[in-house]
Amino acid sequence: MTRIAIMGAAGRMGRVLIQAVAQEEQAELAAAIVRPDSSMIGVDIGELAGLGRLGVATLGDVRQAADDIDVLIDFTTPALTLDNLAFCADHGKAIVIGTTGFSEDELAVLDGYKERVPMVFAANMSTGVNLLVNLLETAARALGEAGYDIEIIEAHHRQKVDAPSGTALMLGQAVAAPLGRTLKEHGVFSREGQCGPRRDDEIGFATVRAGDIVGEHTVLFATEGERIELTHKASSRMTFGKGAVRAACWVADQPADRYDMQDVLGLK
Amino acid sequence: MTRIAIMGAAGRMGRVLIQAVAQEEQAELAAAIVRPDSSMIGVDIGELAGLGRLGVATLGDVRQAADDIDVLIDFTTPALTLDNLAFCADHGKAIVIGTTGFSEDELAVLDGYKERVPMVFAANMSTGVNLLVNLLETAARALGEAGYDIEIIEAHHRQKVDAPSGTALMLGQAVAAPLGRTLKEHGVFSREGQCGPRRDDEIGFATVRAGDIVGEHTVLFATEGERIELTHKASSRMTFGKGAVRAACWVADQPADRYDMQDVLGLK
Amino acid sequence: MTRIAIMGAAGRMGRVLIQAVAQEEQAELAAAIVRPDSSMIGVDIGELAGLGRLGVATLGDVRQAADDIDVLIDFTTPALTLDNLAFCADHGKAIVIGTTGFSEDELAVLDGYKERVPMVFAANMSTGVNLLVNLLETAARALGEAGYDIEIIEAHHRQKVDAPSGTALMLGQAVAAPLGRTLKEHGVFSREGQCGPRRDDEIGFATVRAGDIVGEHTVLFATEGERIELTHKASSRMTFGKGAVRAACWVADQPADRYDMQDVLGLK
Amino acid sequence: MTRIAIMGAAGRMGRVLIQAVAQEEQAELAAAIVRPDSSMIGVDIGELAGLGRLGVATLGDVRQAADDIDVLIDFTTPALTLDNLAFCADHGKAIVIGTTGFSEDELAVLDGYKERVPMVFAANMSTGVNLLVNLLETAARALGEAGYDIEIIEAHHRQKVDAPSGTALMLGQAVAAPLGRTLKEHGVFSREGQCGPRRDDEIGFATVRAGDIVGEHTVLFATEGERIELTHKASSRMTFGKGAVRAACWVADQPADRYDMQDVLGLK
Repeated sequence: MTRIAIMGAAGRMGRVLIQAVAQEEQAELAAAIVRPDSSMIGVDIGELAGLGRLGVATLGDVRQAADDIDVLIDFTTPALTLDNLAFCADHGKAIVIGTTGFSEDELAVLDGYKERVPMVFAANMSTGVNLLVNLLETAARALGEAGYDIEIIEAHHRQKVDAPSGTALMLGQAVAAPLGRTLKEHGVFSREGQCGPRRDDEIGFATVRAGDIVGEHTVLFATEGERIELTHKASSRMTFGKGAVRAACWVADQPADRYDMQDVLGLK
Repeated sequence: MTRIAIMGAAGRMGRVLIQAVAQEEQAELAAAIVRPDSSMIGVDIGELAGLGRLGVATLGDVRQAADDIDVLIDFTTPALTLDNLAFCADHGKAIVIGTTGFSEDELAVLDGYKERVPMVFAANMSTGVNLLVNLLETAARALGEAGYDIEIIEAHHRQKVDAPSGTALMLGQAVAAPLGRTLKEHGVFSREGQCGPRRDDEIGFATVRAGDIVGEHTVLFATEGERIELTHKASSRMTFGKGAVRAACWVADQPADRYDMQDVLGLK
Repeated sequence: MTRIAIMGAAGRMGRVLIQAVAQEEQAELAAAIVRPDSSMIGVDIGELAGLGRLGVATLGDVRQAADDIDVLIDFTTPALTLDNLAFCADHGKAIVIGTTGFSEDELAVLDGYKERVPMVFAANMSTGVNLLVNLLETAARALGEAGYDIEIIEAHHRQKVDAPSGTALMLGQAVAAPLGRTLKEHGVFSREGQCGPRRDDEIGFATVRAGDIVGEHTVLFATEGERIELTHKASSRMTFGKGAVRAACWVADQPADRYDMQDVLGLK
Repeated sequence: MTRIAIMGAAGRMGRVLIQAVAQEEQAELAAAIVRPDSSMIGVDIGELAGLGRLGVATLGDVRQAADDIDVLIDFTTPALTLDNLAFCADHGKAIVIGTTGFSEDELAVLDGYKERVPMVFAANMSTGVNLLVNLLETAARALGEAGYDIEIIEAHHRQKVDAPSGTALMLGQAVAAPLGRTLKEHGVFSREGQCGPRRDDEIGFATVRAGDIVGEHTVLFATEGERIELTHKASSRMTFGKGAVRAACWVADQPADRYDMQDVLGLK
């Protein structure tokens, strides 16, 4: 059993993480940490997450739980995450980091902990997306030079402000790299009017924005006679929560180093 | 039994039309017309279309078959089609016109025949696409003002030179009109970079170009909690051939007038 | 503004209904009713639904709110719903009923109120599913006798215990009726082994069970050369909540009668 | 340039193979063989395949072309294929075999040639399907024990007499094997009525039969929060033709042995 502490437990992602731990047989929810000035300190964790009473009260400081935990899961802010890394280094804990928005300086500090802390650090913790990256490298190598056109179609909710999505670009990068292509040179991000026939080596992106779509990505390989489509559909943030818990159970037994989700999934 | 003459029988679409007639129980392939100077005159129609011997030889002039036919199916050129309309007016025949590229003057001439000739004239004879246009008007009225976002996704083969497809625009028009929107004002044909959140009344288009895709169109209505998708997939030109034969069987019994596929399908 | 009371507000569907009312500009959340012995009486409705404080406290009896409301939305139990109908009859209120599981006797009682109460009663309140039923009748009439094969594919989460889904059967009924077919005679619910070629008039069903799929239904019409697919995807219970709120805003202005979602959507 | 001989060139698959060779820059159509008693002997190969004159006449015996060819592509009958293997062994040629229906005795004879003939032997030559088999093994290992449900959905034309398709079973086998499951024990081929919740380790199959669908297969992995779908869509027999030509170009340079498409695609 891996004993897990959820950082930022009262936030939207924190509640999802509590649910994800509750569902995992090999994990135990050992602590849930909220801001030291939060009115939620002392609240039952399960009730907080809408799961019913779990018998664990939230804490305002992870140090209070130091003896009870093996791994932290941290989707908070860069500053808090660096504090938590210091705690891990001092107390021999592992950590899973889903925090985003680090500056380059902060990233350098983070990276410096890799000799003392087993850490998984990934911008997208979804098992499915990370698996897809791996499959795409194989597919691109097998199909890209054999005359298959590559297109990436992504759909997200109406509030999303940028296009294509960061995940679409990550998937595009995964097919471009093994073919010696770059998105800068070969990516085609819009087609409108008389744009002429498709070039063989372009990587096309199509964007859909509608309703409450959490996130859907399809990478299409097509040639005369057949199509192969690799698709990921996120239906809730639980996909990130479950990926993080999976990473936590895995990293608890690893030596200090910085890992990503490809390591966790055994795909390297 | 409707007795049908195929104009331009030796061309790519002509051969498809021969197959489509051969498959329709209520239709009889009564004549197949090729250019008067064609080396194919006298060839067995069935062999021409790869169907095996049918016992009907191609002719160089539709007048030779005047007593044997009820309806012409004509996917040729504007000039030939206008000649064929004159023939229909003189001999009391009906006609299905799939020819494209008419000038405005030619269109006026064509339209002038509607008092003497029962004619079906449509740019896209596919039953499915024309049905979709009808369904979309109903769907747009039910959903468009109720907060559903509308997006149109289309995919075609790598040789297609324009985007979005003419059919995608036709479908967009079908949803825009009942909502008092126009594609000129509300159509969004590309999204790239920081484009901000979606406007409620925009109609988005996404374009995919790959492989040998004959033509796929999806109109998506999405709001929080649900999506409705209306999709058409063409797998071969037979979809146009079958629509034309259906139109021919229908128009043979109609009074002189100019009809479209909505009439044929009984959707008006 | 339609003033709405949510019955059973503390239940899973009740909380969804509160969210749905909160999102609708033309509706006002006027009351939220919980069981008279509930410990939730007096709780702020918004906090109950995770929306933040709304300034309305839950009540244990709808009679306390009689002067403040126009329409009840009721997804509870048959016995409670019949009580609420009596209240509506006495106080001149309208009602939207999403309750299921009525006995025939209870249904007769319910139906008896239609002369005194404007009511919308529907097993599935989703706007999209009800629209689809309407579109399918049109599509079946246009395609069913013209050689298009009809198949229905549905996917649901792993806990679902029956197959095909009730909604799949409802959609099947919508295509069967206008073609003079019945699911009993023409429905094909499984294919395994050497089952021979497809009969022209069968209506096939295919079932997928996996993960957390809320509910997806596709009705496919296919013939040589083309396919038309009409698809509904539910992403959350909000689809039912929003349909119910839409029905409430509509029924508030109607004369006493029993209506369904086709009436609400203006599709009759 | 690989010089290729097409066996059974006048048949439906033979014509497709001629087209596939004509499209491949690294291959040259060096001979096309028809039955020795065929009326097609001496016909121009290109005209036979509807490609226009290619300047190569069909032959009735592959021995006539022995000096001009490197590899045979053979989609004929078991007896003819064994004859062709003898020819390859005697003349130092390679062969790509897409023939099906071998008896066990015939298979043993075929296998015996592997020490003298470089041969690729595969029931399905599609590059995409064979790639999918490879990707599925990776995906099953990463997801199968992590609580993802696995389902396989396949769609074919109305004439197909068996269900599920052989390819669906092959894909099912590809996911079952790395998880220590068998289709016999864990495959679920139909769901109807009150079938109860899904078992964690079942592999479900859903079958669609409609219209002219050449062949579509999706393998779905789903858990709470996400889905991964790997899909193959065949749009014409060219997918088999192109796979065979790819195999021919590859096997021409290999030492004698029996290979499959995983070898050709470099996926082992």
